[in-house]
Amino acid sequence: MRSLTEHRGAALALASPLPVVEVLLDDADGLVVADDLRTDEPLPRWDNSAMDGYAVRQADVVDLPTTLRVVADLPAGSADEPVVGPGTAARIMTGAPVPAGADTIVPVELTDAGTGTVLVREAPAAGVHVRRAGEDAVPGDVVVAAGTLLGPAAIAAVASLGRATVRVHRRPRVAVVSTGDELVPPGTPLRRGQLPDSNSWLLASAVRDAGGTPVRIGPVPDDVDALRSVLADLDGTVDAIVTSGGVSVGAYDVVKAALADDPGVEFLAVAVQPGKPQGLGRLPGGTPIYTLPGNPVSSFASFEMFVRPAILRMRGLADVERPSMSAVADEGWTTPPGRAQLMPVRWVGPDRVVRATARGSGSHLVARLALAEGLAVIPAEIDQVAAGDRVTVLKVSP
Amino acid sequence: MRSLTEHRGAALALASPLPVVEVLLDDADGLVVADDLRTDEPLPRWDNSAMDGYAVRQADVVDLPTTLRVVADLPAGSADEPVVGPGTAARIMTGAPVPAGADTIVPVELTDAGTGTVLVREAPAAGVHVRRAGEDAVPGDVVVAAGTLLGPAAIAAVASLGRATVRVHRRPRVAVVSTGDELVPPGTPLRRGQLPDSNSWLLASAVRDAGGTPVRIGPVPDDVDALRSVLADLDGTVDAIVTSGGVSVGAYDVVKAALADDPGVEFLAVAVQPGKPQGLGRLPGGTPIYTLPGNPVSSFASFEMFVRPAILRMRGLADVERPSMSAVADEGWTTPPGRAQLMPVRWVGPDRVVRATARGSGSHLVARLALAEGLAVIPAEIDQVAAGDRVTVLKVSP
Repeated sequence: MRSLTEHRGAALALASPLPVVEVLLDDADGLVVADDLRTDEPLPRWDNSAMDGYAVRQADVVDLPTTLRVVADLPAGSADEPVVGPGTAARIMTGAPVPAGADTIVPVELTDAGTGTVLVREAPAAGVHVRRAGEDAVPGDVVVAAGTLLGPAAIAAVASLGRATVRVHRRPRVAVVSTGDELVPPGTPLRRGQLPDSNSWLLASAVRDAGGTPVRIGPVPDDVDALRSVLADLDGTVDAIVTSGGVSVGAYDVVKAALADDPGVEFLAVAVQPGKPQGLGRLPGGTPIYTLPGNPVSSFASFEMFVRPAILRMRGLADVERPSMSAVADEGWTTPPGRAQLMPVRWVGPDRVVRATARGSGSHLVARLALAEGLAVIPAEIDQVAAGDRVTVLKVSP
Repeated sequence: MRSLTEHRGAALALASPLPVVEVLLDDADGLVVADDLRTDEPLPRWDNSAMDGYAVRQADVVDLPTTLRVVADLPAGSADEPVVGPGTAARIMTGAPVPAGADTIVPVELTDAGTGTVLVREAPAAGVHVRRAGEDAVPGDVVVAAGTLLGPAAIAAVASLGRATVRVHRRPRVAVVSTGDELVPPGTPLRRGQLPDSNSWLLASAVRDAGGTPVRIGPVPDDVDALRSVLADLDGTVDAIVTSGGVSVGAYDVVKAALADDPGVEFLAVAVQPGKPQGLGRLPGGTPIYTLPGNPVSSFASFEMFVRPAILRMRGLADVERPSMSAVADEGWTTPPGRAQLMPVRWVGPDRVVRATARGSGSHLVARLALAEGLAVIPAEIDQVAAGDRVTVLKVSP
């Protein structure tokens, strides 16, 4: 059996950063910057006032109080370039460029707020309330580096460079296909043996949570020709395909059957519970495909381990790991010999966890899975978790 | 001056969970469930097989090996209800209901995989590979509780209840309005005194990150009538309005001027740096409005403290707090006497931070803000952070 780590590596190796596109800043959230963005200009561009007040000459405000003649009015955005000579002041608002001749900003609170003349009662030292050109960035500085995930602050920084668009890696479109004759869309009355498809929603939501755009298809019946047709249509039109179900040893394992003659796809056992039967590879058109087992907890854990990192890589992110932490198991449980275990857990204290699916341990427990806040990753060498043991938990809740 | 905590409380008090709507599961990501969702049926609905194999009677597999006659073939989804009598077996796939008479599932690996007859070499105890009806949930169980944030596992649980739709609190639509005569859209050539609007993108992205839908408007010039018109159009058509700029003591503070006669809105000083000048209240149509100061770092920190919790509350979330952690300051800095401080920081080790805007400390440093991964919250009582001090850091990176 292939180890969890080895299969994760194989899954990740199928993914590479997607082509670069230029998007409007309004559409840039969650995308990843493709190039280092440098500034051509100093930021701020001009020495400017950090306060609402008066721009004056330091020499004029040594002996206080004093009255100066107001020779200009400089709201933010003013293009005026007055000169502040001896005995004069310019009224100035926050952000307006400091006029020539002035070296001192007197906040309005230290004056009588006059408009024709101004009485200055107190004054700070020269330069105190002046924001210097270039103190945020100087020409040539990388303001937003390639690989930066665009969130509020990074998007604002791009805007401050005067750019209305940004070059990013395209957002991955990922098809999710659930398979199984027993599956019907939720809302359909069930006859004996049927159950509502939940995996296509599980995986579509997980794709979105990973920063991709899901293309949800399902459920597809256990019909080899039907599935081949679906996959052929998707190959080359999406960036990856994820299937659930049909990869085990049963007589009706449709995904295995549909891809059996495909030299680009391999099926194998991975030393992990849940999620032992796995497949991956490329379809003839080059599209990466990940075939996950169909039990909901298996699909959930397999997506987390094998597909999510690949989507993050496609987006252009260097770090494809979930945040993880060490926690204390508040109860014990057994784990399969020689296989790693992925156990959905929930928090019962700041660093204490119990199994989310405590009523049973099966990989079909989709209702209990809703309680999962983390996924404990138990190494293959460990066969038993005892109450009080420390375990590593990935934080998987949205 | 009002304390940070007090103003945060006032900001949150303007928000309440938005009305309930019914959405398709495909549109449910990130929304919050309005009602407890109970199951009417046991989950799983039927005792079913956990393995691909054969359903047999335990009495028939005591003496092994033995050969049994295969009387039925039960793929997943089969509606057949055969009876397994003495000396017979039903071929069964994972998930198919266990037929009457059978109490034992023999995995296919322990047989010759026959179709007419099957040779059983080994057999597990009765019930071992049977998933019992109701072991995931029994009728009346709350499967997804009111207040649950819908992510992959919760959406799958709703689907498993056979529901194609879910009742959730509506997603907040939040208008962001940047103001200032100095602002031009990014991409516009700058003349002296102008700078690109970055706040409307900053705040729109922050709204999205908080789970709202932004309505980005800006920049609006420092014109009281223009701004009043914009606000009147928004009042009653969005769930909240956030403005930036124009709330200080300058001669052109357009937001203050536009709302000066509005009895529902108050302007005040908050004991925090950055972000001292604040306003909030309700417009005549009842829409909450938050007027933030215009410096980018001030807008960013003010949104984080006052607006984000309100958006989370509108979504129906009970917990409106960011995850926070204790970290060691790797350098010292001063903080203003008697005011709390919100300092953008970045990580330099697993629990060590430095200021993100280290080249300067001003609230105009939008380029440096892109490096911020956290916001250190320094209480008002502390006037100096020394290298090695522990500080509380909110994790704000997307």
